[in-house]
Amino acid sequence: MISNRKMRVILLCGGINKRMTPIIKHKSLLHFTGKPLVAHQIEGAKEAGLNRFIVVVNRDNITDLKSAITSIPDIATEFVVQKRPLGMADAIMAASALLLPEPLIVVNPNDVFDASAYSSLLSEYDRNSNYAAYLVAHQTPDYFPGGYLVVNEGNEISRIVEKPPKGKEPSNLVNIVVHLHSEPKKLLGYLAKMSSSADDVYERALDRMIRRGLPMKAVVYTGQWQAIKYPWHILGAMDYFLNRLTRRISPQTSISDKAVVEGNVIIEENVKVLEGAVVRGPSYIGRNSVVGNNVLLRNSMIGEGCVIGYGTEVKHSYVGDGCWFHSNYIGDSVIGDDCSFGAGTVLANLRFDEAKIVVEVGGHRVDTGYDKLGAIVGSGCRTGINASLMPGVRVGPDSFVGAHVCLARDLGAGRKVVAEPRYRVLPNETKLAREKRQQALKKLVD
Amino acid sequence: MISNRKMRVILLCGGINKRMTPIIKHKSLLHFTGKPLVAHQIEGAKEAGLNRFIVVVNRDNITDLKSAITSIPDIATEFVVQKRPLGMADAIMAASALLLPEPLIVVNPNDVFDASAYSSLLSEYDRNSNYAAYLVAHQTPDYFPGGYLVVNEGNEISRIVEKPPKGKEPSNLVNIVVHLHSEPKKLLGYLAKMSSSADDVYERALDRMIRRGLPMKAVVYTGQWQAIKYPWHILGAMDYFLNRLTRRISPQTSISDKAVVEGNVIIEENVKVLEGAVVRGPSYIGRNSVVGNNVLLRNSMIGEGCVIGYGTEVKHSYVGDGCWFHSNYIGDSVIGDDCSFGAGTVLANLRFDEAKIVVEVGGHRVDTGYDKLGAIVGSGCRTGINASLMPGVRVGPDSFVGAHVCLARDLGAGRKVVAEPRYRVLPNETKLAREKRQQALKKLVD
Amino acid sequence: MISNRKMRVILLCGGINKRMTPIIKHKSLLHFTGKPLVAHQIEGAKEAGLNRFIVVVNRDNITDLKSAITSIPDIATEFVVQKRPLGMADAIMAASALLLPEPLIVVNPNDVFDASAYSSLLSEYDRNSNYAAYLVAHQTPDYFPGGYLVVNEGNEISRIVEKPPKGKEPSNLVNIVVHLHSEPKKLLGYLAKMSSSADDVYERALDRMIRRGLPMKAVVYTGQWQAIKYPWHILGAMDYFLNRLTRRISPQTSISDKAVVEGNVIIEENVKVLEGAVVRGPSYIGRNSVVGNNVLLRNSMIGEGCVIGYGTEVKHSYVGDGCWFHSNYIGDSVIGDDCSFGAGTVLANLRFDEAKIVVEVGGHRVDTGYDKLGAIVGSGCRTGINASLMPGVRVGPDSFVGAHVCLARDLGAGRKVVAEPRYRVLPNETKLAREKRQQALKKLVD
Repeated sequence: MISNRKMRVILLCGGINKRMTPIIKHKSLLHFTGKPLVAHQIEGAKEAGLNRFIVVVNRDNITDLKSAITSIPDIATEFVVQKRPLGMADAIMAASALLLPEPLIVVNPNDVFDASAYSSLLSEYDRNSNYAAYLVAHQTPDYFPGGYLVVNEGNEISRIVEKPPKGKEPSNLVNIVVHLHSEPKKLLGYLAKMSSSADDVYERALDRMIRRGLPMKAVVYTGQWQAIKYPWHILGAMDYFLNRLTRRISPQTSISDKAVVEGNVIIEENVKVLEGAVVRGPSYIGRNSVVGNNVLLRNSMIGEGCVIGYGTEVKHSYVGDGCWFHSNYIGDSVIGDDCSFGAGTVLANLRFDEAKIVVEVGGHRVDTGYDKLGAIVGSGCRTGINASLMPGVRVGPDSFVGAHVCLARDLGAGRKVVAEPRYRVLPNETKLAREKRQQALKKLVD
Repeated sequence: MISNRKMRVILLCGGINKRMTPIIKHKSLLHFTGKPLVAHQIEGAKEAGLNRFIVVVNRDNITDLKSAITSIPDIATEFVVQKRPLGMADAIMAASALLLPEPLIVVNPNDVFDASAYSSLLSEYDRNSNYAAYLVAHQTPDYFPGGYLVVNEGNEISRIVEKPPKGKEPSNLVNIVVHLHSEPKKLLGYLAKMSSSADDVYERALDRMIRRGLPMKAVVYTGQWQAIKYPWHILGAMDYFLNRLTRRISPQTSISDKAVVEGNVIIEENVKVLEGAVVRGPSYIGRNSVVGNNVLLRNSMIGEGCVIGYGTEVKHSYVGDGCWFHSNYIGDSVIGDDCSFGAGTVLANLRFDEAKIVVEVGGHRVDTGYDKLGAIVGSGCRTGINASLMPGVRVGPDSFVGAHVCLARDLGAGRKVVAEPRYRVLPNETKLAREKRQQALKKLVD
Repeated sequence: MISNRKMRVILLCGGINKRMTPIIKHKSLLHFTGKPLVAHQIEGAKEAGLNRFIVVVNRDNITDLKSAITSIPDIATEFVVQKRPLGMADAIMAASALLLPEPLIVVNPNDVFDASAYSSLLSEYDRNSNYAAYLVAHQTPDYFPGGYLVVNEGNEISRIVEKPPKGKEPSNLVNIVVHLHSEPKKLLGYLAKMSSSADDVYERALDRMIRRGLPMKAVVYTGQWQAIKYPWHILGAMDYFLNRLTRRISPQTSISDKAVVEGNVIIEENVKVLEGAVVRGPSYIGRNSVVGNNVLLRNSMIGEGCVIGYGTEVKHSYVGDGCWFHSNYIGDSVIGDDCSFGAGTVLANLRFDEAKIVVEVGGHRVDTGYDKLGAIVGSGCRTGINASLMPGVRVGPDSFVGAHVCLARDLGAGRKVVAEPRYRVLPNETKLAREKRQQALKKLVD
């Protein structure tokens, strides 16, 4: 059943995630509640009655994206390869041959938002289809380092201001890339005329269209919205999905009657929850995972085939597939696939001075906005016993942090950190009388 | 209701606690079972029928002492400021204007003892009021580095020997400063004539009074007694109060049915005890505190608004208000207010050789008498993840012990210790085949 | 009741265990399920109807072996002291005066095997007693660095090949020293003629006997078999006995109803299992031991009088008597008697590269065959808080590993390792506003 609405959604998944380092999986493929982000986005569009999609991919993610999307029923999808990651304009141009005269909705997989953003857009278009474009605007009092829409009283857009400094926002309307273009050919014309290949060609084209008199309308959206630009934003996206959970425990699970599963928790099939474990919602546990004895798991997402071993606390963290933990503390952290942590590894998540965690990305210091942020660990990493990772540290994929290492700096990909412990070996002058020990034993647990 | 007995108790709280470093809160203000020590002392006196008090304070503790005492019903209290901490004699002299001809009981807030000490004193006085003074004498076979009373068969005191060396004790009667002076004016006269301002002027004045023929009587006390001279004595005082507990759980608590609360435990209002926690009496938990999942708490006092977080053991320790712990071991330790310990911080409480813990105080090595003694941590301290504190270490207030630091020496106030970890970063030659991992996963929990 | 069978078993327990370092207790005295190995071996023989024993001992183990054996009912035992540890041939020669014309079964206490090995041997002998000797041969596809039997179709032995290289095994029959000699005098004759005092004199004598025409028969044994040659073989022997357990909980135990005891577990008298503990079979817990709160114990043997303290996991490990653990992870490890581990001590049991653990023994690198192997710790050892031991590390008896030490190399006997931590002490510029803390407290557990 494909809807009659002759309108298509173009999802721009051809970019790369430089700023997402050390999380190298394409953000559209990150799983939330067991599904890749792109599937969530398509399902949101379906909910609003949109069933036709163009997905712009790149050579690295095409296979995974096809496999993630083709299993979604009742949609028609075309895939286009964007050869180089040259931004949104280039991505739309790459799909130009597929673009019909019918309206087109441009969506950036950076953004996590409710289906209501689509339906608001569509009802505005249905009410008055005379605008060249309809741009979803997130109304928020908080500053966001992105584009702001300047509008008149009728919400007609007069200007787009990219990244105004904090305090200089021209409005409280942040531009979310959920843009309905009534005539995509017009957009293509403007894009073709832009000279530069800079990151913001698409936005500048929109601005030029406005200035040339093509009317655009801001469609105000007051729902939840989370951009995924930096890896810690994965936690925000996780919160978005966790807050929408309804409790669902697969009948194919084994949950000890000495365990507690409380609140809005999804537990998929073949999960084991052992004695003494406590799982507090909202949380998600992917299939084939084990929540070991005395584990405390709260406000977190765990992927498939993970073992959250004995005596581990996972708090407000995103954990990929195939991870093994063991007597760890993992708080406010993002852990890729196939990681394993030695017993006693702790991820610190709070500075002594309780200041916001600041991280260097591409030579710039970026305030994460979090005062509680643990580590960001790429896929295939391991840590040794009693290792310590400081707040906000990023560990590149396939890197090992040795036993007893206290890692306070970022680590690249494919690295191994080895402690150089210093100790002296001396003769042991103390010989304990066995009798003393035996006496102590009599007192037993002391 | 103020008793008819025209006798007053003077509590000498004007001193400072140099030897109590790093615990800087005045000892009379330390809370035990939710009340400051001075309130316990006043209530002990009330129990014996004494309702009139003079409290000698200093400029630092006057506000807190007034607020601690004025809420106690049915007593009359006068406050006197001792300007400089010049010892007991100076404290009594500071209050001289208030001293009436009626008898006076001098009490040192160093000492924790039963109300029966007061009642023995009073009944001795009631039986025969001809003595110039009545001194409570703690009968004990154990050595104590304080004053000893030499008495005749009728318990009349012939001499006071200050700090005899161990093995040279002239009796088994230790002088506790709970002294009834029949005519305080006489005491004041002797005190005024003493030339020195040394620490022991009061004791020497007593000795001179005896030698001048003023008869004094030792009133033998065989009950519990604990002096608080060094900070580890707070543990002894804690034991004193813990051993007197009767079970009382506030109805305004939330105790999981998967938790255990066993024995003589006081739990105040708004306390939460989470799943898997075990609280063993005798123990005290102040209001608004949280005992987290899988915590083991035994033989300890926890102040108000503390969070004893996931996977922490607190054993025979005194914890102030507003502390946050998380996957820690805290044994035989004294922790001030507003401290927080990173996950994996451990306080060692036993030497390898099981010898008594010896601590340096003011240039002297002092045997604490404990073979199990953890750390003494001042208020406002923090430790990082996987930090280790050695037995008997004292950490000054407002100091931070960094992640991965193994602290074997005392730390002053307002210090920060930062580990200088040594490690090498190498290329990681090991790439784990994902298949191997997947095979392992099949075996699941191993 | 001594059986009529005029056949004796000679147990060769006079050797020393150089390769077993740091486990210095004689292997025949190591306890499994509460009994020394030699007692298990004697009971196996008894099961097959053998009741007369000669035990060759040395000066160090004679007392303990006598005491271990004399309590076994219904057997006759003679003890012979082997003066120097010169191998099996020397041991048998030491007992020559006791050797009667009756058949003799030579047994090496290295080997753990089923009683069926004896009964197969005896029934073969009963069927046809014409062979000079009957050698138990363990049929296995796996390589073992010991002697191999070359046989003909009738299982007559044509040759013994000592330690063929892997892949060059002449058969799949490994020689286990459970050897029935029809006429011990003949064996003695050959042994006497051997010139060398090398380790393998006995085997070479057998080989010479065969070559001189004395027929020998291989008795194939397909049951379980475990040699104890290196200390990690103790884990294999433990598995042997664990797999034969049937559940038995002494009525004199105290097991919390909040604890779990699951599967084939033996719990001896006076054991306490506290709240939240999980004991998974097959496991054995010796008398007077305590399994503390929230402990996870699985696939392990715990000796007598141990305290497995709060928050400890013991997995697939052999633990001697009188050990004290506390918030430790102990996996795939062998721990001698009277050891204690500080809180946070972790024994790593897996290399980052998941390779087999290789250990140096007597200048040779020996592949343990385990990819999961923890530490081998001699008796009387202690570790400090947050100490880390790397996979396969051996700690000599009476050695202490200091707090915060990461031990990656073997440690001799009677040593003490002291960390030389490096840190800087700075002024602490951060003063936390108490108000901020109080606000945080309002949010409580976060």
